Amino acid sequence: MPELGDPSAALAAVDLIRAKRDGRTLTAAEVRWLIAAYVRGEVADEQMAAMAMAIYFRGLEPPELRAWTAAMIASGERLDLSAVGRPTVDKHSTGGVGDKVSLILAPLVAACGAAVPQLSGHGLGHTGGTLDKLEAIPGWRAALSPEEMITALRRVGCVICAAGAGLAPADRKLYALRDVTGTVESIPLIASSIMSKKIAEGTSALVLDVKVGSGAFLPDLEQARRLAQTMVMLGEEQGVRTSALLTAMNTPLGRAAGNALEVEESVAVLRGQGPADLVEVTLALAAEMLRLAGIDADPAAALAGGRALERYRAMIAAQGGDPDAPLPHAAVSAVVTAPQTGWLRRLDARAVGVAAWRLGAGRARKEDPVSAAAGVLCLAKPGDQVEAGQPVLELRTDTGSLLTGARAALAGAIEIGGEPPPPAPLVIERISSGTGPS
Amino acid sequence: MPELGDPSAALAAVDLIRAKRDGRTLTAAEVRWLIAAYVRGEVADEQMAAMAMAIYFRGLEPPELRAWTAAMIASGERLDLSAVGRPTVDKHSTGGVGDKVSLILAPLVAACGAAVPQLSGHGLGHTGGTLDKLEAIPGWRAALSPEEMITALRRVGCVICAAGAGLAPADRKLYALRDVTGTVESIPLIASSIMSKKIAEGTSALVLDVKVGSGAFLPDLEQARRLAQTMVMLGEEQGVRTSALLTAMNTPLGRAAGNALEVEESVAVLRGQGPADLVEVTLALAAEMLRLAGIDADPAAALAGGRALERYRAMIAAQGGDPDAPLPHAAVSAVVTAPQTGWLRRLDARAVGVAAWRLGAGRARKEDPVSAAAGVLCLAKPGDQVEAGQPVLELRTDTGSLLTGARAALAGAIEIGGEPPPPAPLVIERISSGTGPS
Repeated sequence: MPELGDPSAALAAVDLIRAKRDGRTLTAAEVRWLIAAYVRGEVADEQMAAMAMAIYFRGLEPPELRAWTAAMIASGERLDLSAVGRPTVDKHSTGGVGDKVSLILAPLVAACGAAVPQLSGHGLGHTGGTLDKLEAIPGWRAALSPEEMITALRRVGCVICAAGAGLAPADRKLYALRDVTGTVESIPLIASSIMSKKIAEGTSALVLDVKVGSGAFLPDLEQARRLAQTMVMLGEEQGVRTSALLTAMNTPLGRAAGNALEVEESVAVLRGQGPADLVEVTLALAAEMLRLAGIDADPAAALAGGRALERYRAMIAAQGGDPDAPLPHAAVSAVVTAPQTGWLRRLDARAVGVAAWRLGAGRARKEDPVSAAAGVLCLAKPGDQVEAGQPVLELRTDTGSLLTGARAALAGAIEIGGEPPPPAPLVIERISSGTGPS
Repeated sequence: MPELGDPSAALAAVDLIRAKRDGRTLTAAEVRWLIAAYVRGEVADEQMAAMAMAIYFRGLEPPELRAWTAAMIASGERLDLSAVGRPTVDKHSTGGVGDKVSLILAPLVAACGAAVPQLSGHGLGHTGGTLDKLEAIPGWRAALSPEEMITALRRVGCVICAAGAGLAPADRKLYALRDVTGTVESIPLIASSIMSKKIAEGTSALVLDVKVGSGAFLPDLEQARRLAQTMVMLGEEQGVRTSALLTAMNTPLGRAAGNALEVEESVAVLRGQGPADLVEVTLALAAEMLRLAGIDADPAAALAGGRALERYRAMIAAQGGDPDAPLPHAAVSAVVTAPQTGWLRRLDARAVGVAAWRLGAGRARKEDPVSAAAGVLCLAKPGDQVEAGQPVLELRTDTGSLLTGARAALAGAIEIGGEPPPPAPLVIERISSGTGPS
C-alpha cells in the first residue's frame, strides 16, 4: 500500500520488500532505515526473512550492497587498533574441511612483524569453526573484551577470539535469521556479513581465503570469484586494503578434520612437520598478508626458525590455555579401507566434513555442544597409491553409535583408479581491487 | 543441512525452504507437514515468510498447490450444509472499487431458490470489504456461529457473515503473515487462500468474479485468467462445481465507493433503480450461480418483482440490522470538477478506491476502524458528456483534513477527450473446468 499517508515501520518495511521483490534498487537511505529499524525490533523477523529471500532472487546492486554493509557496521562499534603500534592485517576463510590455517597463520604473520586481530566464530555446519578448535585446548577461552584484545595484540602480536556483541550486531541478528530461513547462500548477503564484521574489528588490511570445490560453501569457481570480487570491493570502499586468494577445497586441507585433531596438526606445521598442502596454502596466505601490511619478510623462514611456534604458544597462554596440556582423545576409533588397489584419485571434502560433523565434531544448532576429540584423519590423500583393504580414513568419536551415520556420509567419497589424478593447483587465483567486479 | 540425521522441525523447514527456493517440487507429504507444523507453531513465522517469498518467485506446481489447499482446508473444520435442504452456491470477488455486488446477489439468488452461504471479510486496502459495508447498517452484526449460519440459510436462503475462526485457520495465519511480508501478490498463494476458505464453508458450487483492470488486485488480463483457471481447478478437485467470470474493473462499478454509500446503491438496485453496469454484472453472476446450482430461474424477473429486495430485508433483519434505519451521513463533502468540456473517457478505479480509502472508508491495518459514511460518488461515468466545471466526483468524509490526500490520489484519474471512449465489455470471459489451465 505505497499510497498510504502515514506509514508505520511495518508498512514501510512492506513497501521496501515489495520494491526489492519487484527488482527496484533501494536507496542508501532506505537500506540504512531498514537495517537500523530491524536492529531496533521495529521491522519484524518475518519481514527481514522475506527481504532476505527477495535479495536471494534479485541480488543487491553495488550501491545497495555498500549501503547495506555500511549500515551493518554502523549498527555497532568499529574498533580502533591504532594503539597496537604495528600494521594490522587479518585473514578470513569462507570455510573448508580441515581448514585450520588460522591457528598457524596468525602466529606466523605476527612473527614476521604484523599484528593479527582475528575475530572468529564457532562453527555451524560441516566446515567447523576456529573457536571450536582452540576450545579443545584445556583452559583456553575465546571471550575477550576489546581492551583485552588490544593488550594481547600489543604483547603477543596476534589474537584469535570471539567477536564481541558490540561489533556489527545487525549482522549477528541477521545471520541467525538467515540460518533458519534458507537465505544463507546469497553472495551479497554473505559478502556483507563477512565484511561488516571484519571491517568493524578495525583491521587495516584483510586477505580473504575463498574456498572453491565440493567442501566449500560455494563449490563453483565462478560464484567464488564473484564473492571474492564483491568482498574486495566492499573492503576497499571502507578503507581496508583487501585481496583474496581462491584456493582448492575438493579434498580436506591437511589430514585432520575435527577440533583437537586440527590443533595437533597445526602444531605439527609450526614444528616443521605438517602436510605439504596445508603448508603451501598457509605460506601463500601469509605472503599475501605481509604484502598488504607492507612488511618485507619471509614467512617460510619464520616457520622454519620456530618463531611462529613461539608466537603460537604465547597466544594460547595469553588466553588461559596450556599449550603443553594433552588434548582430549576419542574413546572409539574405526577405519574406512580402500575398496581396491590403485591410485587414490578423489577423497571428497564435503563427505569427510559431514562425517566429522556426524561423529560429534560439529553442531546442527548454535546451542549444541561439540566434541573436542571427534573427527576424521585422512591416512591417504589424493595422489597416493593404496592397496585394497588399506585404511584410508580413521574415524574418531566419543559415541560408537555415531559411526554408522558417519560411514553413510562417506559412501562414494573415495575414488580409486588405475592412474594418478591430474595435478590441480592449490592456489587457483588472486583477486585484488584491480580485478574487481566487472 | 539436509544430511542431518535427526532433523527438528526448524531444520526440516529450512530444507523445504531451500528446496522450493532452488526450484524443486515439494511432495504432498512435505506440504502437509509444513502447513500443519506452521499452524502448531513449530515452523516459525520467519520461516513461512521466506517460504512464501520463495513461492512468489518459483510458484507452485499443480500437485503442490492441490496439497497446499487441501492442507489449509484440513487445518480446520469443513462445514456440512446438507441440512439446508436447497442447492448451495456462493460467489467470491477478487475485489474491485465500488464492488457491492454481494449485497444484491445473495438475496437475488436466494429469491430464485438457491441457498447462498457467503462468508466474507473486512477490507484491507483500496477495494473495501463486504462486512464493512453491511456494518454501516445500524444493529447489523457479522459474527454468526456455524449453527446460526445454517439457521439463517434455512429461514432466509442467504447469509453474509464473517468466517469463523474454525474455518481454514492456516489461511488466517498465513494471510496475516503475507500481508506484512510483501507476499500477497502470488497467484498460487491467492488461489489457495480464497479456495481453502470457500471450500471449507461447505458450498456445493462457487462462481468467482475475477476483476481485471486498474482497480483490480491483478490488473493484467493474462494474470487474472491464470488466477481464475487455477481457482476453478482447485474447486473442481475438491468436489465444488466452480466457474469464473473475468469482469472489467478499470472504472468503479456503479457510482458509489464507500460503505454506507454502497449499501444505499445496493438497495437502489434491488428497487429497480440501480446503475446499468452494476445491474449487468450482478445479473451475469446470478445467472452463472443458478446454472451451477442447477436452478432454472430468471434473476432479472426476481429483481424486477421485488422478491430479491424482500430477501435482502429479511437477511439484514436476521442479523440484527434495521433495513429501514437511516444510514450514517458524512459531515463534510466536496466536489472534483471536470477540467474541460468533452467526453469523460476514463475515471480510474484505483484512484477512486484510494481516494475513498483516504477519506476514511478503508483501513491500513486490520485493527483500524473505518468510517461508515466516507467515500466517493461518481456523478459522471465514462461515456458521459461533461461541461468544464461540472462536478464529476463528490467526496464525503467525517474529517475535512482528509480531503487533501484524497484529491491528491485523484490527480490524473479523470480523462476528458473530444470523442466518446471505445465500448468495452463488462463481462470479459467465462472460465470453467473445460477451459482450465493449459
